Amino acid sequence: MFRVPGHRLSSETEPDPAAALERLLSAALELQLEESGLQSVLLSNQDETDEVREAKREILTTWQGVLARARETGVVRADIDAPRLQRLVCGVEHAARLGPRDDRDVLLAVLLRGIRA
Amino acid sequence: MFRVPGHRLSSETEPDPAAALERLLSAALELQLEESGLQSVLLSNQDETDEVREAKREILTTWQGVLARARETGVVRADIDAPRLQRLVCGVEHAARLGPRDDRDVLLAVLLRGIRA
Repeated sequence: MFRVPGHRLSSETEPDPAAALERLLSAALELQLEESGLQSVLLSNQDETDEVREAKREILTTWQGVLARARETGVVRADIDAPRLQRLVCGVEHAARLGPRDDRDVLLAVLLRGIRA
Repeated sequence: MFRVPGHRLSSETEPDPAAALERLLSAALELQLEESGLQSVLLSNQDETDEVREAKREILTTWQGVLARARETGVVRADIDAPRLQRLVCGVEHAARLGPRDDRDVLLAVLLRGIRA
């Protein structure tokens, strides 16, 4: 089943926009690595149930909110929107699955550095 | 069949270490996106033929050379080695396949920015 990530609220209440973005991406990556079917659910255009559709809508809204704050304060590239950022996290998840566990922190650091304005 | 990427030499002869790294990664990503089976060949530990094994050894040597120059001149993170960088490119390839074509330049830019020292 599909559960709404618990990091949603912590990212939204984090006052620093850059820290909120970092927390969001770190938790999203961790969650996707834990639940191997999540990526395809997130990316699918055909949701199985209304509950899944609603959960995905909430997630996207959260990402958009965190990104909007990051963009307003100039901490993220202007050409990174929420769907593109989700695809980037899916790419990092893919890379993380190819290597040893100690890759993960480096991959996340590369992503965070890479999307900075 | 497996062909040795033509960008190998151009990256090696490029005098500027950062430009060489950029050229290498741009060409590697383009090549992997063109040839969808390449990623699994690159990552496999079991090579079909001596020719493939030799081609992969050459590619890895090139990556190590370009990375060594980039590291010496301080343009790349110290924790990025050639296998990790290959996994990162595989992750970007994965992300690129999930989205529209105009994602590609942004994804490559994020990768290049992300691995900078």
